[in-house]
Amino acid sequence: MSPQRRLDVVLDSVKRLLRIGASANLLNLLQKQHPADLADVLNQLPDSDCRGALGLLLDHNSRLAMEALIEYGAEPGADLLEGYPPERIALWLNELPSDDAAALIDELPDGLSEAVLERMRPQESGEVENLLEYSEQTAGRIMNPTVFALSEDLTAGEAIQALQGSREVEMVFYLYVVDERRHLVGVVSLRRLLLVAPETPLQRIMTTDLITARVDTDQEEVAQKVANYNLLAIPAVDEANKLVGIITVDDVIDIIKDEATEDIYRLAGVSGDEHVFTPARESARKRLPWLAMNLVTATLAAFVVRAFQGTIDQVVVLAVLMTIVASMGGNAATQTLTVIVRGIALDELTWANSRRALLKEAIVGLGNGIVLGVVGALVAWPLSGSIFLGLILALAMVINILVAAVAATLIPIALRAMKVDPALASAVFITTLTDVFGFFAFLGLATLFLDYLNQAA
Amino acid sequence: MSPQRRLDVVLDSVKRLLRIGASANLLNLLQKQHPADLADVLNQLPDSDCRGALGLLLDHNSRLAMEALIEYGAEPGADLLEGYPPERIALWLNELPSDDAAALIDELPDGLSEAVLERMRPQESGEVENLLEYSEQTAGRIMNPTVFALSEDLTAGEAIQALQGSREVEMVFYLYVVDERRHLVGVVSLRRLLLVAPETPLQRIMTTDLITARVDTDQEEVAQKVANYNLLAIPAVDEANKLVGIITVDDVIDIIKDEATEDIYRLAGVSGDEHVFTPARESARKRLPWLAMNLVTATLAAFVVRAFQGTIDQVVVLAVLMTIVASMGGNAATQTLTVIVRGIALDELTWANSRRALLKEAIVGLGNGIVLGVVGALVAWPLSGSIFLGLILALAMVINILVAAVAATLIPIALRAMKVDPALASAVFITTLTDVFGFFAFLGLATLFLDYLNQAA
Repeated sequence: MSPQRRLDVVLDSVKRLLRIGASANLLNLLQKQHPADLADVLNQLPDSDCRGALGLLLDHNSRLAMEALIEYGAEPGADLLEGYPPERIALWLNELPSDDAAALIDELPDGLSEAVLERMRPQESGEVENLLEYSEQTAGRIMNPTVFALSEDLTAGEAIQALQGSREVEMVFYLYVVDERRHLVGVVSLRRLLLVAPETPLQRIMTTDLITARVDTDQEEVAQKVANYNLLAIPAVDEANKLVGIITVDDVIDIIKDEATEDIYRLAGVSGDEHVFTPARESARKRLPWLAMNLVTATLAAFVVRAFQGTIDQVVVLAVLMTIVASMGGNAATQTLTVIVRGIALDELTWANSRRALLKEAIVGLGNGIVLGVVGALVAWPLSGSIFLGLILALAMVINILVAAVAATLIPIALRAMKVDPALASAVFITTLTDVFGFFAFLGLATLFLDYLNQAA
Repeated sequence: MSPQRRLDVVLDSVKRLLRIGASANLLNLLQKQHPADLADVLNQLPDSDCRGALGLLLDHNSRLAMEALIEYGAEPGADLLEGYPPERIALWLNELPSDDAAALIDELPDGLSEAVLERMRPQESGEVENLLEYSEQTAGRIMNPTVFALSEDLTAGEAIQALQGSREVEMVFYLYVVDERRHLVGVVSLRRLLLVAPETPLQRIMTTDLITARVDTDQEEVAQKVANYNLLAIPAVDEANKLVGIITVDDVIDIIKDEATEDIYRLAGVSGDEHVFTPARESARKRLPWLAMNLVTATLAAFVVRAFQGTIDQVVVLAVLMTIVASMGGNAATQTLTVIVRGIALDELTWANSRRALLKEAIVGLGNGIVLGVVGALVAWPLSGSIFLGLILALAMVINILVAAVAATLIPIALRAMKVDPALASAVFITTLTDVFGFFAFLGLATLFLDYLNQAA
């Protein structure tokens, strides 16, 4: 049975058990699921069912319920918690790793989050408050501050004993080694520990060439480091190189997914935090500014057409053909823009090699422009009944596609140099630019050769 | 010094040392770099320098050179190897894990790859050939077949001894337990092994509730499992549940990045395997079909306009305003399409909840359509000098944005149901659809009310 199929069966059972009120059976079923699967189930249940199932689980297995909420996402997860009294939420949050607790608390309404923090165990709330002091989207904000570290003057055997005596800590496969003031001095793998004689000093077997993340590093940069160097975790250090936390690869995967989503969204004029099931009112409000900007730029394009209204009045078929020029330019620009923006995001494109990229895109634009221009002319000829008009269309298409390629390369590179997210040069702007320029090139050329056109017509 | 800054310094030094021919210094510098950093350097060097630096490293530290090539990417990496004699390539490939070797060999020209396989060590070439028998983009193709497994009748102490005696294997933190015919029966963590008494049987401490990947599973599904369940690796099993390989989280990260790139690209009509520095001729050839399709659909839109040529002839300002309707519909559609396609990719949107998504998008479309329609009317009024024309514009905009939202939701969901990649419903098609429909709605309405318009004008 495929995972999706299995989940559908679980979902149907949950719905049925909720309907007939078979709480004991429902609880039994829910408890058998992995938190990630529970999150999927919550996501697909209608709102009231979702709250019902979660409430049952919170009452009887709050640890699992909270883990499911974390997988469900901090923002919608916090929404589901809002109705509960702060002392209960505090109790539940005590059981979570503090990075997960911080993510949820951060999304609670201000009054509630304060009430919850006051009621948590002092150590847990202290850790959460520390994390929340770091800026959003930095290493400090996403790290787990509970990190197992070994003192540098232990032997391998003592290290294994220390590990055996430690309470549960997240993912111990890199063992970080610190000096007496908790400065990070090395790392040793669990496997290495097993392979050497117990009396070997840690200092002899540890690696000192460490890849670390400063707490104030942007999370995207952290993710790139972990991905590039194929790490399972990266230690977070403060400005004095003291070990303060650990960021594990599962968090990095979430970041990589989120950043990819953000890039895809920005190119389309959608804000990064929208989801399929963001409430309609909120979605509409978030998308409206982009559409409003497009209305402004589309009006600009309309003004360009209006400037040539006299020409269109004489040769009305121009209105038919001008849309082809604009549409082709827009699509060629979107292709170039996407490759360039993604290349920047993946660090393939840098300032140093941007000239090479520009040259390439210009050649591609010119090449495809000529091919499509010729075909376009052959289409326009019968459509307009004038071979001369076909030639003007071809010329305008070549110019517009070439301009589109150059603009769609330069604008994101320039934005990146100005430290603005290049994906903000969204398709909305670039395609309007190609509309404006396409109308201008085509109608301008037509106006220039108006006498010939009138003779031909 | 930021990582990017440090790399720029290395890059400049490499260029300088190549220019003055200081091979010993250059080799020294290159050998100090991480394979991932070397790959970045190779990527940013001009082609001849890139081959020069790589050649030097292949001569003196072929293991590091090959690891850098893997990070550089199998396709461009294989390009760089092509000039060398097959016996040397075979020697170098022997040193790589067989999944990496297979990835490179797969990208070599057919004749060369056969010659190389013949010259590799029998065990290595056998492993590579086995991997290449699995379909592309499946678990079998990307797994590492060298996986450390423990026999189920060992004790914890014996297991640690077995581990100490094993040659280097990839990432041993999950220890898989197999029966005498290598069926996968359980997993035990390295940490757990250390915490129990040496005489404890593995069967008592192993987890039997295993998450596995069948060799024929699509790599995207494998990646989703590893990401959802926060795994560091997933065992690959054949149809009889025999353990045949392991897929580690670093490979999963690469898959997630590649799939995100593919989604972004497809939405824009770019094929998944294009990079910023794909040669111009190849890029142009790959993008041309999408543009050609767009030319067909844009011509369709032009025919719609042509059908109303008579109306435009009488009220020429319609040609000015019609572009606003089409452009707004196109952008609203792109927003919806992006959210829906990404929601499907991230498994947030399923068949079960698609009605909810459709309802939401329809409400968003209607809401934003009305707001923008009103503003659009206020813009069109002075632009056209007719309040009546403004009203027609508003009505056409509301209709077109609503249709755009519904089409951009339904088409990808339908494609998904037909097991076609929903991202193929690229913006190219959806925006042409909104062009066609926008022109039709606006010019159609204008024709309907032509008498009023003529009176007003």
